Amino acid sequence: MSETSQLSVRRGVPALRARRLGLHTQHQAVVVMRTDCHVCRAEGLAARSQVLLTLRDRQVQATLFQIDGDLLSHGDVALSEAAWSLLGVTDGEQIHVSHPPSLDSLSSVRRRIHGNRLDESSLTSIVRDVVAGRYTDVHLAAFLTASSALPLDLVETAALTKAMVAAGDKLDWGRAVVVDKHSIGGLPGNRTTPIVVAIAAASGLLMPKTSSRAITSPAGTADTMETLTNVDLDIATMRRVVEAEGGCLAWGGAVRLSPADDIFIRIERVLDIDTEGQMIASVLSKKIAAGSTHVVIDIPVGATAKVRTKEAALGLSARLTDVAAQCGLTAVCKLNDGTQPVGRGVGPALEAADVLAVLQNLPDAPNDLRERACSLAGAVLELGGVADVGAGYQQALAVITEGRAWRKFQAICDAQGGMRSIPLAAHSQPFTAPRDGRVINMDNRRIARLAKLAGAPDAKAAGLRLDVRLGQEVQRGQPLFTMFSETSGEMAYATEYLERNPEIIKLGD
Amino acid sequence: MSETSQLSVRRGVPALRARRLGLHTQHQAVVVMRTDCHVCRAEGLAARSQVLLTLRDRQVQATLFQIDGDLLSHGDVALSEAAWSLLGVTDGEQIHVSHPPSLDSLSSVRRRIHGNRLDESSLTSIVRDVVAGRYTDVHLAAFLTASSALPLDLVETAALTKAMVAAGDKLDWGRAVVVDKHSIGGLPGNRTTPIVVAIAAASGLLMPKTSSRAITSPAGTADTMETLTNVDLDIATMRRVVEAEGGCLAWGGAVRLSPADDIFIRIERVLDIDTEGQMIASVLSKKIAAGSTHVVIDIPVGATAKVRTKEAALGLSARLTDVAAQCGLTAVCKLNDGTQPVGRGVGPALEAADVLAVLQNLPDAPNDLRERACSLAGAVLELGGVADVGAGYQQALAVITEGRAWRKFQAICDAQGGMRSIPLAAHSQPFTAPRDGRVINMDNRRIARLAKLAGAPDAKAAGLRLDVRLGQEVQRGQPLFTMFSETSGEMAYATEYLERNPEIIKLGD
Repeated sequence: MSETSQLSVRRGVPALRARRLGLHTQHQAVVVMRTDCHVCRAEGLAARSQVLLTLRDRQVQATLFQIDGDLLSHGDVALSEAAWSLLGVTDGEQIHVSHPPSLDSLSSVRRRIHGNRLDESSLTSIVRDVVAGRYTDVHLAAFLTASSALPLDLVETAALTKAMVAAGDKLDWGRAVVVDKHSIGGLPGNRTTPIVVAIAAASGLLMPKTSSRAITSPAGTADTMETLTNVDLDIATMRRVVEAEGGCLAWGGAVRLSPADDIFIRIERVLDIDTEGQMIASVLSKKIAAGSTHVVIDIPVGATAKVRTKEAALGLSARLTDVAAQCGLTAVCKLNDGTQPVGRGVGPALEAADVLAVLQNLPDAPNDLRERACSLAGAVLELGGVADVGAGYQQALAVITEGRAWRKFQAICDAQGGMRSIPLAAHSQPFTAPRDGRVINMDNRRIARLAKLAGAPDAKAAGLRLDVRLGQEVQRGQPLFTMFSETSGEMAYATEYLERNPEIIKLGD
Repeated sequence: MSETSQLSVRRGVPALRARRLGLHTQHQAVVVMRTDCHVCRAEGLAARSQVLLTLRDRQVQATLFQIDGDLLSHGDVALSEAAWSLLGVTDGEQIHVSHPPSLDSLSSVRRRIHGNRLDESSLTSIVRDVVAGRYTDVHLAAFLTASSALPLDLVETAALTKAMVAAGDKLDWGRAVVVDKHSIGGLPGNRTTPIVVAIAAASGLLMPKTSSRAITSPAGTADTMETLTNVDLDIATMRRVVEAEGGCLAWGGAVRLSPADDIFIRIERVLDIDTEGQMIASVLSKKIAAGSTHVVIDIPVGATAKVRTKEAALGLSARLTDVAAQCGLTAVCKLNDGTQPVGRGVGPALEAADVLAVLQNLPDAPNDLRERACSLAGAVLELGGVADVGAGYQQALAVITEGRAWRKFQAICDAQGGMRSIPLAAHSQPFTAPRDGRVINMDNRRIARLAKLAGAPDAKAAGLRLDVRLGQEVQRGQPLFTMFSETSGEMAYATEYLERNPEIIKLGD
């Protein structure tokens, strides 16, 4: 955020006292000034102007709101939490508020809107300004819309990936082979990552995994792992864990890898657009910044998954592999069944229970989760050069059955701060089959929505446990799934949604 | 803003007490709730969520911020001024805060992003949701970017124009011919409208003119007219003035004509994009909603005007005329010189002085303003059927020289509430020629910027008065222009800008 090159507070702009407002505005830097503030009048600043905050050698761009009355004293400027931490100010310090400089990179955004392709240097400037917080939502939406309306081509996608890597930190593990794995989202319960990391690390590979928290889903790998151990690792701790155990399961938010990605994702979520080029740059930039050299990508395919057809999956797979190669990364894509959730649990703690059952090689462990994890781990072992081609799956399975995966997983959790016991939900309620029949459809999107209404991922124990699989014959009154929540209010929300959407699991004859 | 069709507050969502925060956020509806608010937790609402506020039969969509500490009591929700007035709530009233319904029209925006053309029905839904405040900046920017990346075609531009008219009020004057005029912006001092209205009304035509305040310029017609009379007319007053005098000069903001236009313009200004289709829909929707049937459009052409080449002007002219015809409006475009400002004054009061000098037929009235006003008024007279083709200019000039324009202007001002005397600036400072030479260039954009730094349009008397014209020979030390401001601080801003941009008026040999 510091930008020494632009430190030119205009002559005569008086300083104001910074006040912490305790205002949570997500990422958005907001400042509040008095409606009758003399600086606003002198500078020509009005409500919702973009302003530049300067504290010594740091500058942050923020949105200005104005307030009537005496909540603020004359000479005060109140900062939102985001602005406060970005600027690194302490209460009562003198800061300057002025017009922000015009952004050269916006002319590239305008050129892109008007149909011109952008080169790596233009994209690098755009991403740098985005990460510095200089783009408003309007600018961000315009850039992402323009690069969806005329989709990013191969060259642009690779250039954007590199630009996103360059705008953050990059880890270096000093090894020729560093493996990673990624699942394209949208499939509830698809929690293979902890199992794959345990198998890869137990097999001698280096797999320093960083994962996200849930964005729109009921659980991300970081949410699930957090029910089992500490995932909030700084770089030094992460290094120590990986050097000792060959792998880790850390939350990516604590390290600054491809920070533009989080900003773009926030806007894409609002627009509900996620075009191929942006998605590829998002996935690959995180992997490259994490120091990975070889990555296996899981693409679930199904009508209610993110990728809906095999054709789309093959196209995405080819483009992912191409862009990865241009960025010096070896990628292999695996197409997988995306017609129903994986495992039984949906929600952080419920998914953690499935993961433990597989790792502990319990007889009632969900078979589909074990198979999918071994398939992906096998691909990782082959790609990492520790299994012959075609032998990865069996080798991965053996690591589980011999107990080596479970021991490695425990060792990693111990190194991260010790294992925790999985939280249990206070409230549970089964949803039973309204008739005899066969399970003919599962709606991944509505299953995810229901788990979120029950409180997942913030309420760690909340979510649902599926009691049937596709194709299974059920009898009237038999539980199809069980809902779990931490409060009765959330259970009521979930129940009400279910009444309006009874065909989350569809029965046929 | 009221939407009875969507009035379904979810069962069990408790009411909160509305508090007025006095927070100015421009158009944005914002609510602030406690970080530990039980409704937020129960509803899954986080900082910067979009929320739906419900008060009896009214609903407003707003952005949620959260605040720590005890500024708000438990059970309170604080509203920004925009949210407060849109919802029409009183302090302490019970309102509900919940998730907003999903917007069907956003799927049209997504289809447009992906390259599909939109029909009138889709555009109507989009514009209706925009006007109801249901689009965030992200959605607005996406829609405008998508319709710039793949420019609106003729059919879409006409459909958008009609949709924008339909989303607001429409005036009906019960006459077959209602004339209007519009100038494409970007040329300082181009204040012909008051003169044209006086001439048209004095010639028996109906010209119920609504004008905007300045958006990015140092003065809009409403700002200038406000120094001379009251322009804040409600519909009833406007009707009374027009029925008595045949014309009015009202601020358009007091009537709700094409309300989507103001919202789109705000976003376009941030992006600094103003593509042809959007601009045409903006201009024509306002005219149609105002009940006009015949409109003359002034297109200034010059390197630092909005339209930079004659080719661009001809293309714009053809498209404007076409779209107008599709919407049942007769439009005539006039290309005019846009290489330098019109008249002498730049800024509300300074432009008003020029207007009065022309209307009063004073010997030192700026000749270029008189000629341009007569040219446009002549076109209006011809289009309105009260002058023969080719005779309009001379007829308009005669209305001025015979004093009829001035009498009509005074009568209109009297009907609007009486004439005011033009305010005078407290501070003035000449800028003199640094050398002998000839004026070879005037930078319209920098002249406008300088007038704004001096305080225009908020400070009515601020701005500048040009003392030379293009081509004029000047001697070292002779004033090129004089700056006016209401405060010494604003004069300092303007002077400083001038030091950094001395070639606002360029001298050659």
